[in-house]
Amino acid sequence: MDHGGAGTPARIREFLDRERPATPCVVVDLDTVRERYADVREALPGARLFYAVKANPAPEVVRVLVGLGASFDVASPAEIDLCLAQGAAPETISYSNPIKKRSEIAHAHAAGVRLFAFDSEQDLEHLAAEAPGASVFCRLLIHSEGARTPFGKKFGCAREMAADLLVRAAELGLDPYGVSFHVGSQQTDPAAWEVGIADAAWVFRAVAERGVRLRLLNLGGGLPASYLEATPALPVYGKAIREAVARHFGADVPEVAAEPGRAVVGDAGVLRTEVVLVSRKSYDDDHRWVYLDTGRYNGLAECEGEAIAYRFVTPHDGGPVGPVVLAGPTCDGDDVLYQRTVYELPLALRAGDQIDILSAGAYTASFASVFFNGFAPLPTHCIGARG
Amino acid sequence: MDHGGAGTPARIREFLDRERPATPCVVVDLDTVRERYADVREALPGARLFYAVKANPAPEVVRVLVGLGASFDVASPAEIDLCLAQGAAPETISYSNPIKKRSEIAHAHAAGVRLFAFDSEQDLEHLAAEAPGASVFCRLLIHSEGARTPFGKKFGCAREMAADLLVRAAELGLDPYGVSFHVGSQQTDPAAWEVGIADAAWVFRAVAERGVRLRLLNLGGGLPASYLEATPALPVYGKAIREAVARHFGADVPEVAAEPGRAVVGDAGVLRTEVVLVSRKSYDDDHRWVYLDTGRYNGLAECEGEAIAYRFVTPHDGGPVGPVVLAGPTCDGDDVLYQRTVYELPLALRAGDQIDILSAGAYTASFASVFFNGFAPLPTHCIGARG
Repeated sequence: MDHGGAGTPARIREFLDRERPATPCVVVDLDTVRERYADVREALPGARLFYAVKANPAPEVVRVLVGLGASFDVASPAEIDLCLAQGAAPETISYSNPIKKRSEIAHAHAAGVRLFAFDSEQDLEHLAAEAPGASVFCRLLIHSEGARTPFGKKFGCAREMAADLLVRAAELGLDPYGVSFHVGSQQTDPAAWEVGIADAAWVFRAVAERGVRLRLLNLGGGLPASYLEATPALPVYGKAIREAVARHFGADVPEVAAEPGRAVVGDAGVLRTEVVLVSRKSYDDDHRWVYLDTGRYNGLAECEGEAIAYRFVTPHDGGPVGPVVLAGPTCDGDDVLYQRTVYELPLALRAGDQIDILSAGAYTASFASVFFNGFAPLPTHCIGARG
Repeated sequence: MDHGGAGTPARIREFLDRERPATPCVVVDLDTVRERYADVREALPGARLFYAVKANPAPEVVRVLVGLGASFDVASPAEIDLCLAQGAAPETISYSNPIKKRSEIAHAHAAGVRLFAFDSEQDLEHLAAEAPGASVFCRLLIHSEGARTPFGKKFGCAREMAADLLVRAAELGLDPYGVSFHVGSQQTDPAAWEVGIADAAWVFRAVAERGVRLRLLNLGGGLPASYLEATPALPVYGKAIREAVARHFGADVPEVAAEPGRAVVGDAGVLRTEVVLVSRKSYDDDHRWVYLDTGRYNGLAECEGEAIAYRFVTPHDGGPVGPVVLAGPTCDGDDVLYQRTVYELPLALRAGDQIDILSAGAYTASFASVFFNGFAPLPTHCIGARG
């Protein structure tokens, strides 16, 4: 198979060879986190970056980003508390989940958080009651293609409703700060942001006519990590986004924010796994089934629907290969990683071999089940500069 | 919507009303576990019942079943240790996961486990090395329709290969005990077992001709719990299975085993959840989105693909209803419970209302993510006789 020429990054490989941690586990290189954060900054100059904590909530990762001056996009009170414990200032935190209880808003407000997403009147009323005077931005529901893990219609509201709600926010004593949208995670098309930027500009104009001046354009997430399918380089995304902002906002340039998660931590992590078994199902099917000690319920949740196709490094790379079906270790029929996506792995692969799954730093460990089939969650080991 | 006439079971409702535990949580009534276990015994008289620990590994549930004389189907060393800690004897444990490391087999053998599933030559060789003399049964790959969570091709091997492997087991000094198969979980068709029973009988005959006498027919799991879609009563399954065994095995009746999980604990549990938000997406879409504090990543994993459609009890049942989309609390676009399955819920439903999700005792709590989006795993409260 094509690994894009890359093996396991040297610093992580050295750690694994030296420490031999029990598998499965994720190793995150904090120096790579720094590098990728700098890459995103360079691609989106001037944008305020809110790290999407959900991508990898390892305390060490958050601490490094605090040191780099990042802001934080959180989804829950526990993520707020995590950021604060790692030294983040409350004014760097955006509570970007439009689905929250009144009690969760109150928790955030008591912790000093003053920036919130919303997409419904009910949430807005809760915000006015529990976080009076807070800055709020409305999430737009947009339709975009090209994401490997699209959002569907769960978040956001139509632009006409968004405009009404932002005016309503001002009436409720909140600060109507701007709009956000999300093009879906692991977005492969740099042009995908344009639809949201155009809708955002429409909302800016619509509410300006009603006396409300918005300032924030939040581009959400979507910037990619490096999986099997190649994506354009980050600067290509940056250029497409900047040009779209200029096209739709003209001289009236808004404050720009983004919520990168995968692009910051994805490539910084390697998931080391062990081959549990290699077998065949019958005498007339040449496919080998390769069972790993990691699967959809203890690290590879994003293999649902084969959305994310990771790159694999085996000890036998370079030797003859054949088609495989890759599956996890549980007694669950859905715990199959790749059946349609074509993977060819070395014929020499055996039980006990160790495989490195590259770019596994995002959306792996925190997704893992607490005890499904008795398998433990995936541990994370951080290496490199700790801020 | 149709709840099948049932509300929240009285004992669980009384506990919830009295204790007001934080939501979301699952409450399991151990008296119902006893009753359902007795129901399965009655449906399959004479069969040895191995409780599928993965369905609900709450220690209290395992302890009650130890007290009732159950055996246990486990998927991992941690499930073995859990059963032993709750008083199970090692000879009541079946390591039914055909995907296991040599070190996991060694762990099981050291703990006294002497019964193992397998479906590949490699696993068989590991068993011979690490669990010499153990009783082993071969899992057959069968094709069956009608399961709400089918197994696909992940487990088992074709019957010709199974026969060869069972003969090989004897050569390796293992005890070739029998065969197993699985019709898929929440199997709605009582006739689905017949294909597997027929294949099992074929294997019994094929290896008998080669001098190996098998004794065990393991029917796996598949017996249902009570969700929105009605299923036949357990005695209907029992009758269909008994008749199929008689048809294919004749006078040469094997020892029969089954691995019920969902049928024992599913109906014993209620998941109490709170409505986080009710909203609309635009002025021209009448669907309300109802967001709950439980979703696919903290309890309702089996809503993947809308496989399991639970029954809901709301405080406004009986009032006028309208269509809803049901979703979970995370910032994840896939954390939507039902979009295609038609649910109509009361128009009076509001944020803060509590909803009971019935028959949520199986495959909920242990599936939950350890920290996805900062949401905690789902806690379980057990009530009733503790054996």
